[in-house]
Parts: sequence; structure tokens; C-alpha cells
Amino acid sequence: MSNKVLIVGGVAGGASCAARLRRLDEKAEIVVFERGPYVSFANCGLPYHVGGAIPSRANLLVVTPELLRQRFRIDVRARQEVRRIDRVKQQVEVTDLESGRTYLEDYDYLVLAPGAAPLHPPIPGIALPGVFTLRTIPDTDAIINWIEDRQASEAVVIGAGYIGLEVAENFKQRGLAVSVVERAEQVLPASLDYEMAALAQVYLKQQGVNLYFGEQAQEIKEVAGQLLVRTGQRNLTAGLVLVAVGLRPETGLAREAGLELGPTGGIRTDSGLRTSDPRIFAVGDAIEVINAVSGRPALIPLAGPANRQGRLAADNICGRQATYQGTVGSSIIKLFDLAVAATGLNARQLQSAGIDYRSIIVHPLATAGYYPGGSQISLKLLFSPSDGRILGAQAIGQDGADKRIDVLATALQAGMTVYDLERLELAYAPPFSSARDPVNLLGMAASNLMRGDVAAVGWDELDSLRKNGALLLDVRTPSEVEAGIIPGSVQIPVDELRHRLGEIPAGKRLVVHCATGLRSYIACRILKAHGWSEVYNLSGGWRTYRTAVAERSKLTPFTTDLK
Amino acid sequence: MSNKVLIVGGVAGGASCAARLRRLDEKAEIVVFERGPYVSFANCGLPYHVGGAIPSRANLLVVTPELLRQRFRIDVRARQEVRRIDRVKQQVEVTDLESGRTYLEDYDYLVLAPGAAPLHPPIPGIALPGVFTLRTIPDTDAIINWIEDRQASEAVVIGAGYIGLEVAENFKQRGLAVSVVERAEQVLPASLDYEMAALAQVYLKQQGVNLYFGEQAQEIKEVAGQLLVRTGQRNLTAGLVLVAVGLRPETGLAREAGLELGPTGGIRTDSGLRTSDPRIFAVGDAIEVINAVSGRPALIPLAGPANRQGRLAADNICGRQATYQGTVGSSIIKLFDLAVAATGLNARQLQSAGIDYRSIIVHPLATAGYYPGGSQISLKLLFSPSDGRILGAQAIGQDGADKRIDVLATALQAGMTVYDLERLELAYAPPFSSARDPVNLLGMAASNLMRGDVAAVGWDELDSLRKNGALLLDVRTPSEVEAGIIPGSVQIPVDELRHRLGEIPAGKRLVVHCATGLRSYIACRILKAHGWSEVYNLSGGWRTYRTAVAERSKLTPFTTDLK
Repeated sequence: MSNKVLIVGGVAGGASCAARLRRLDEKAEIVVFERGPYVSFANCGLPYHVGGAIPSRANLLVVTPELLRQRFRIDVRARQEVRRIDRVKQQVEVTDLESGRTYLEDYDYLVLAPGAAPLHPPIPGIALPGVFTLRTIPDTDAIINWIEDRQASEAVVIGAGYIGLEVAENFKQRGLAVSVVERAEQVLPASLDYEMAALAQVYLKQQGVNLYFGEQAQEIKEVAGQLLVRTGQRNLTAGLVLVAVGLRPETGLAREAGLELGPTGGIRTDSGLRTSDPRIFAVGDAIEVINAVSGRPALIPLAGPANRQGRLAADNICGRQATYQGTVGSSIIKLFDLAVAATGLNARQLQSAGIDYRSIIVHPLATAGYYPGGSQISLKLLFSPSDGRILGAQAIGQDGADKRIDVLATALQAGMTVYDLERLELAYAPPFSSARDPVNLLGMAASNLMRGDVAAVGWDELDSLRKNGALLLDVRTPSEVEAGIIPGSVQIPVDELRHRLGEIPAGKRLVVHCATGLRSYIACRILKAHGWSEVYNLSGGWRTYRTAVAERSKLTPFTTDLK
Repeated sequence: MSNKVLIVGGVAGGASCAARLRRLDEKAEIVVFERGPYVSFANCGLPYHVGGAIPSRANLLVVTPELLRQRFRIDVRARQEVRRIDRVKQQVEVTDLESGRTYLEDYDYLVLAPGAAPLHPPIPGIALPGVFTLRTIPDTDAIINWIEDRQASEAVVIGAGYIGLEVAENFKQRGLAVSVVERAEQVLPASLDYEMAALAQVYLKQQGVNLYFGEQAQEIKEVAGQLLVRTGQRNLTAGLVLVAVGLRPETGLAREAGLELGPTGGIRTDSGLRTSDPRIFAVGDAIEVINAVSGRPALIPLAGPANRQGRLAADNICGRQATYQGTVGSSIIKLFDLAVAATGLNARQLQSAGIDYRSIIVHPLATAGYYPGGSQISLKLLFSPSDGRILGAQAIGQDGADKRIDVLATALQAGMTVYDLERLELAYAPPFSSARDPVNLLGMAASNLMRGDVAAVGWDELDSLRKNGALLLDVRTPSEVEAGIIPGSVQIPVDELRHRLGEIPAGKRLVVHCATGLRSYIACRILKAHGWSEVYNLSGGWRTYRTAVAERSKLTPFTTDLK
């Protein structure tokens, strides 16, 4: 006798669970309930329909109900909402949102894949017409219609996370002026550390996106047919407002059924994705996962993990022994021509998890320097000081950032160390990489730290080191120096260093920098060999320092002679 | 007392060894001897200077001798050849190729990085003016001058390996007509299996490159100011001929010094890259390495490994305990807008190493299907049937092939299995990937095989299966079927299969195919559930079959109604 499986939610996790169930069990009865009008739609594609990159709305419908019925013999019920679970009777109560009719459906197994809902912060005016969130196709329709009907020319986006920035880009692509208001001091705080975010921010401003950090919308008002967003620091006027300040797991149904929730507020599951009721599985954005790096519970709403979870729950329903090994949080966003990506934990997350780490930043070219069209890529690696194990990575660049973060995500999940990255053999030809791939360079820089060949400091440690008497040595060339210096630094090009050692006070604590950290590493080696015992390389060099400080100076007074 | 280290060869391995030595030992005396006029030049960039993508010859000089002297205090001696090693006295005999002067130089450590030389097969006429190999900057100069002086409009390339195809593309970019003659039955036989090579071959022909397989140049003649290449099957006329049939490790110096060579003919080293004389290290294209997948000795002349070996030899000279863990052979080539890449071993290499394997081919889109501009990527995975460990991979595509092969190379080096690929969490957003990345799909397809959820056959097994009575079931849609069918196949679209099971003879052995292998997998699951016990999925589907058979039909008579 085969199972009857009910699935609540028909997008990423629910749809993949249903299809996998059918492939494993031709006889199972499979019903998918979807509250919204569409199953299995491209929710990651919605911002690109707003911007026009995906011109046809039909393209957002990845898998039609007809295909699910014909190919997978799945009973798809759109606009039908599961409102109650009777765990004892193994029944759910369903309301048909079209007819209002309510009925019961029993199950052998129930899979909860209700997803997450956009947070609506308690801002006065958040319910005004023209204030939107973006999560569904109807949301997308409403935004596009509003822009077209009102001929909106300005938009305010509240929240500089993934959705907020993707929509900001797409508003821009539609020709709207865009301002982004973010409570944190940077974009993408869930993924990037400050100095990496700063690189993205400089670029976004070059694309004409206005960014306001450390500000919260305190009120939205309608004034003369426009919306006015008041942050306390400023008033922003717009034809529409998008609120993208985060997601809330849809746990109402689970909670009312007495299923356990975890400390993060997501549905708690075991490693087989069973809830506290072994007949009920849960997958996707609604569940609490274990962060595979920290070992701690986390909410990580991503499409890839949701798909895998759906598949895995199906395996277990069919009697296989499949174990979910946690989520590392690999993510990427396109910002115009820039890619910004991350995997694992960032510095702030490692600190809050109490995990000791070291980090390194490099800015190599993504392809062989002599091959035309190569662009710089910025990579940050976070790793364990005890064994060099990779804990996280961040990448920003116009080309090849997606490749490097996927290599680093794979290495992280394999338990690789910085020494493994140093020797990793990747595919090289000049149009694609360098003989020493940026990932190798990252591994070498980190391995150098681990072996004690060089010590490093971050851009944010510089001030305190200098207050304590360290000398800042700039080993760039005179032409590079013309573009600006770090105040108080002494300039000696690396290629003159051996002849000019006499200019550097003996016994002095030194912080050395160049443009990116590569030549200053060589300078550090020379200085150590000639008797300076306390020598630090400035990680990421001038490029990281300049960008981070220039961005920070918008927030707090900070004097610098940056040009 | 610091070491005096002599390095023979100043390109990839030698130059990286020298620079690393200096970073580790400020006091060492380091001398680099380079027979040619240039050290540390971009030898992987040479084809692109021929084609004009790298317009400036100066760009090929990656690191100048001045930089090596100033920044690294390395004594660079170009145009000086080490001709003899006296291992007892720890001396080398050097000839200054400019003055003819000969002198002795003693060493504490000697590093051999002489590289490899292009093979010159014993073809009558191979020494004629206008017949070239490409390995050095002077080679490049000579080729460009010849083309310009003679206004050459046609070229013959002998050899369809990496260099041959890169030069073929670049000749084409310069406007020359190009014919490639290759002894094997396919391009890139050292990397690709036949059906993957076939995809590249179809594309190359679309770009107007003439390809002749299974043919060898038997003679080159000068006829009326043109060169004529006679293969036995045809005569090809050209203004110039490039010979690129492989490399020969430069082992003369080592051999004469009595250093051991390995069975492949390369210099033998231990895992610390020491030759049979512990004072002498060897790195780069001249050495025999251990193939990390097969555990067998191999010649794998690649820039990335050469660089790492140079660095590693320096570590050991400086008293560190560094171990070279073998080479997996990750490689990539740009062919116009296509990328072709591989890592690990291919099927032929696994067979010859006596390693049992299974394989799978998929052809997914490189990015989300609904995002514009996505192109198909073809991936082949070879893995161990006992534990699913990755043994090799091949990738071909216009976008993202480099990324997928680097992820797979990382996974291979980490010892990952197909199950790890199935659950690998990569960074997803629609412009970069799919929620199920092509690497995940490859892992799923392979895991399905490993778990026995489906059985697979290759395109080249089809004929014998059908001779033994198997029925070929084509589950594509009618519109796909219009583009051509495999002769003798029965067409039932997957979405009609459940209603038309009566058309399929009970108990029949079945081979099922669709366009790529995805829908036919679903069909296989349906058929197995309905009682057919012997059901095989055609790996890579119509796309692999059609391409491989169409290519093969050029060689051996093979009737098909391919359109």
C-alpha cells in the first residue's frame, strides 16, 4: 500500500519534494496545496521581470500545474489553503480560496513547505497604496502596474539585502531614480564584511543608486500624490516604496498544530527534516537549519537549500535514510555588471558564534594580466587559526567572482584548509584565469599567515596600531602614490627598499602596505630578514583601506587626505 | 651561512622557484640561467599574440629581468645555457650564448626547470622554411613575420591538442583559412572522450576550421612558393604549417648528469621534488609527476603545476617539509566563444590505468532557464562504481564551463563523491546558475546510477543492445522528433507514457532517450514501476548520440537519418 502525501506549498521545496516523491514511488498519492495562484514559479526571477530583463511574465512560470499533473501525476491545488492540522487524525483542513468551501484531507505524511513572508515593520504608512513587498507573481504585477499607471520616476527601497538591491538595480534599469535606505551601516550585512561591502557601495553609487546607511524609515506619508519616506535624517520622495527588510518564516500552521519551533523561530526538524511529529516533514524557508560552519541553528532562506531539502524529505518519506548536512549560506547577487558573492560565515557572524578566525583580503586580476579585458576581483577568506580550515569567503568582481565563490564553497564543504587552496589545481588558460588562480593567491596569502611568514592587520586596526607608535610604510611606486596616501605614511617603493633601509628607525613596529598586499608582503619579508621583528602587512592594501575609510567617513568624522 | 642556488630555466617553474626562494631567504645567492632571450614570459599567451588579442609584444614579458633583480635580488642570466652538471664538485658549466664564453658556477642546490620542447616528428620537409612550432617569443615573432611577409592566407596545423587548436583559432582570427590534421579520431584526445570532443568539433567546423582526423602528415613539400602537406588521404596547400603534436621533456642535461628518469621519460623526483641527487631539484614540464587519480607516473605539462612545483622546491631548499601531492591535469581551452575544460582522467585513461569507472553526461542550461541569454553546458562525470569517488570530469559550453570544471576539480582533489556533488551548496542567482546547479544535476544523475534508481548506457553501447533485441523508446515531444530520430526508435512522449504503456511489449529490454537524459530518466522510473525490469537511460540523450554519431560517420560508414 502506497503513501498519501500532502504538501503545503508548491514553490521551491514543495515542488521539488513532490517531483522526487513521484520518481521514487509511482503509486503514491501526492497532493500539493498552494495558497497563491501559481505553483513552482521563478521567485528568484521576479526582480528581473520588474526590470524587464525577463520580459515575458509567462517565463516566470517554471513548471506549470499541467506538467506536474501529466508528467508527475501530482494533484496540484492552487488557491487552496491548508488552515489546520489534526495530527491525531492525520488530517488537514483545507479552504478553497475561490469558493470558500472547506474540506478535510487525510495523510500518511505531511510536508510543510510554506516558505517565508516579507517582514512588514511597524512603520506608520506601511500599508499605503504604493508601498510594496516582492515575493510573488501578484506582487510583481502590482509593482509593474503601479509604475506604469502612475508613471513613477522615483523609488525608495527600504533594506539593502539581496531583494532590496536586486529590485533597486531593476528599478534603475526601468529608468527610475532609486534611493536605498538601510538600517545597518552597509549593504548585504548578512553576507559581507564592511570593507567588502564598501567596494560594492562605491560601485552602486557610480551606477547612480543613492545609498543611505544607518537610517530607518520612521514614517511613510502620502503628500500631493507622492509618497514621502521620513528617516529622521532626511525625507525622500518617491512614486513607490519597496520594503525589503527581511523574511519571517511562515510557521503559523506548524505552531498551531503544536509542532516545535527552534530558537530562531523557524520550524524545528531533525537531520532527516522530520518535525517533532514524525509523520510531518518541513522544508525550505520556513525551517530552522543548522549552519554547517557554526553548528548553530539559523534561518537561511535560499532556493538551492530549499530544493535539496524537498528532495531529501521525499527520500525519507520513501524509506531512504537521507541526512541533511546543514546549510553553509552560499549566495550571490548581480549588481549591474558586478557580482557579489559569499559562502560560510563573515567576520561578524564568526564573532557572534564565538569562533576564532583570521582573515585575509586579496585583489588580483581575474584573468592573466597580459590577456585583454581582465578585471580586478576582490576576495576575502576567513579561516581557523588552529588548523587553517576555511570558515567563510566573500568575492566581488565583474568577472569570475561566481566561479571563485563556488570553488571556495566547495572547498569549505569539503573541509579543506588554506593549505589545500594554496595547492589547488584549477583549470588555467589566459582567457579564464592565471597560472596562480585568485583562489591559489588567497590560499598562499592565508598559508603565509598560518606559517608565520608574515603577520597581517586589517584596515580597521591601523589607527590603534599607529596610536601605539607603529610606523606606516607605503611601498607603492611614486605614480601610485600620486593617487593618494594614508596620512602619516612614509613612502619607499619596494624595489628601492633594500637600499633605503637606513631611513626606517631600527626596532620600530612597522605596518607595510602597497596597492593590494602583494608587494608589501615581499617588503615585510625583506624587513624581517633585516632585523625588524614586528612587521605587519596591511591586508587588502590601499584598495581595501581607501574604499572602507572613504565609505566610513560618510558616517563618522574621519580626516584623511584621500584624493 | 646561506645557500647558493642555481636555477636552470627562467620561465614558469624556474621563475616562481627563484621568487619564492628570495621571499624565504633574504641572504641566499640565487642565479637563474635562461637559454632563451627572455625570462618569465607569458608562454600560455603566445597564441593570442599571433591572433592579435594580445596586440603588444611587450605584454608577453610578464616579469622583466630588472624586476627580478631589483625586487628579488635574483641574478638573471639570459642567453646563458647550462650544458653540464658536475654533481661531485657541485658545479655547472655555463656557456654564454652571446660571447661563446664558458665558465663554471658552483652550487649548494641546483633546480632544473628546463621545460619541454615541441616534438618534431620525422616527416620529410619538417625543417622547411614556413614550418613552425610555437613555444617561445622568437617562435611567435617568426610566425607573425612569415605571415606578414608572405601575405599568407592559408595555414595547416598538425595536431589538434591545446596548442594546435589555440593557434588554429588565432590564425582564423587573423583571417587565414585553417586546416587541422590530427592523427587521433578527435580533438584534444588527452582530455576529452570522443562524444565530448564531437561537440567541440561540430562547433569548430561552424567557425570555419577544417578538421581532418585519423590522418598524419607524411610529407611537407614546397610547391610554387607554397607548402604542400600530404597526408595520404589528401594534399593540403598552405602558406605556413604549424606543428603541434606534443612536447618532449628537456631531460638531456639531467640524463647526462646521471640523474634518474622515470618510465615516461621525464626527470624522476621524490615527493619533495628532489631528483635522485638530493642536492638537485627538478620542476615543471621536464619532470615526471604522479597522476593523483591513477597514482601512476605521467607527463602533464601545465603552467599551474609548474608554478606550484617551483614554489615547493624552494620551500624544501629552505628546509621546510613540503610535499607535492601529484597532478590531476585540470585544463581548459578557449575555442572562439566556447570553453572546453577537463580535470582528472577521461574514460580512455581510466581504461588504460585499469580503473573501474562509470560515467554520466548531462546538458543543462548554465543559468536559470527563465533568465535570458543562458546557453547549454555539456558535462561528463567519471566516477568510481564502488564508492562514487570522482575520477574525472569534462565540460563544454559558451558560459560557465570554466566555473563547473573548477568546482569539479576542487571536489575531485577533496576526495568528494557523487553524493557530495548532489548536495553541494553553490551560490545561486538567476544570472549565474540554477537553484540546482549543473554540478548538482551531474551529482544527482550519478547518484541515481549508484543507488540503482536507474541504469544507463552510453551512445556507443546502443548498437549492440539493439542487436540483442532491446527496444529504443524516444520520449521527446513530436516537435523535437521532427528534428530527427534514432533509426528504429519508437516515439511516445513522456507525458503520454502512462496512458500508452500498452504499446510497449511486456518483458522487453528497453533503452529510453529524450533530448538530454532528464525526461528519459523520469520515463525509466515510470517503466520500472510498471513492471519492465530491464530499462536503460541513454546517457546524454539525443544531443550526445546525434553529435557523436554524426562525427563518427565521417570516419566509418554509418547510416542514420539524422537531419
